[in-house]
Amino acid sequence: MNGCCSGLRLNPEVREEARRRLLSIRGHVEGILRMLEDETVYCVDALKQIKAVQGALDKVGALVLRSHLREHVVTASERGDAEGIVEEMMEILKYR
Amino acid sequence: MNGCCSGLRLNPEVREEARRRLLSIRGHVEGILRMLEDETVYCVDALKQIKAVQGALDKVGALVLRSHLREHVVTASERGDAEGIVEEMMEILKYR
Amino acid sequence: MNGCCSGLRLNPEVREEARRRLLSIRGHVEGILRMLEDETVYCVDALKQIKAVQGALDKVGALVLRSHLREHVVTASERGDAEGIVEEMMEILKYR
Amino acid sequence: MNGCCSGLRLNPEVREEARRRLLSIRGHVEGILRMLEDETVYCVDALKQIKAVQGALDKVGALVLRSHLREHVVTASERGDAEGIVEEMMEILKYR
Repeated sequence: MNGCCSGLRLNPEVREEARRRLLSIRGHVEGILRMLEDETVYCVDALKQIKAVQGALDKVGALVLRSHLREHVVTASERGDAEGIVEEMMEILKYR
Repeated sequence: MNGCCSGLRLNPEVREEARRRLLSIRGHVEGILRMLEDETVYCVDALKQIKAVQGALDKVGALVLRSHLREHVVTASERGDAEGIVEEMMEILKYR
Repeated sequence: MNGCCSGLRLNPEVREEARRRLLSIRGHVEGILRMLEDETVYCVDALKQIKAVQGALDKVGALVLRSHLREHVVTASERGDAEGIVEEMMEILKYR
Repeated sequence: MNGCCSGLRLNPEVREEARRRLLSIRGHVEGILRMLEDETVYCVDALKQIKAVQGALDKVGALVLRSHLREHVVTASERGDAEGIVEEMMEILKYR
């Protein structure tokens, strides 16, 4: 899936922290699934939980993004893959 | 958790569809967890998967929101809880 | 431009308040234009000002949206144009 | 206003292009101001115009951001201000 810069890797500590957070996010999704088994659930309560999961995903994303900036983007010119790194960044940042 | 309008419920078919989609989202989160076990994973590939999950959550949210509008918001004046419904909507919509 | 619900109008006080805020936003845009005449301007300072204008536009949008919900959406079922109102809302909310 | 990296400047061509776009955005804001003078204006039509301006601002922002990445972020390690550049980027990107 690596579109640009072969050999670059997510920092191991950040990878571990991202995993921890995603485990918690999976638990949160399972909580919403149980919530939706209840036929009296109210739309707005479901919506709030969905937004909460998106907020948690934003935080994981920010963690990985900061690590990517620090370890790969600011050094791209030295490495010689600046153009690819910039295009990738623009693509990621427009996603939403 | 119901802050406003007791007795209102998420439409059963929408609830079922939201459940189906959230099961798939849980699977997607588990896919990212496996991806993060690989020490060669690249930051940008992880970020793209996180964004994809957020896109899928946006769609579930839109589904529930449309149902809420259709079944509860447009009828709020008839029911007499318009003020609470409006405040709830504003809160949900600013969330992100 | 009215795609749905002919005869509905923005509340006059909200319209006035929105105008006031947009006058201030126009001033803010003119401030950025002057800033960009300076050849020593720094990218990030320009970006922060652009974001600030977007924040101000978010607030005008929230003002108009709240008024629309209060005066037109919660009464749509009584008026008989609920379907059009819901579709319009979904379109507006996905815009970004 | 420069919080980090003194001496860095927005690329002159990008600055000119950003100015051109902001002139057009100012015109768009003035169009909304005229629209709001009409007492029959419909909420949703105003909201759509506000969103359109935000879309245009997104594009100016993307233009400036790409230039910043290309000229200042990928070279930060060489220049020795990587830490400040990363923190600035994270601040800008979370803004909204």
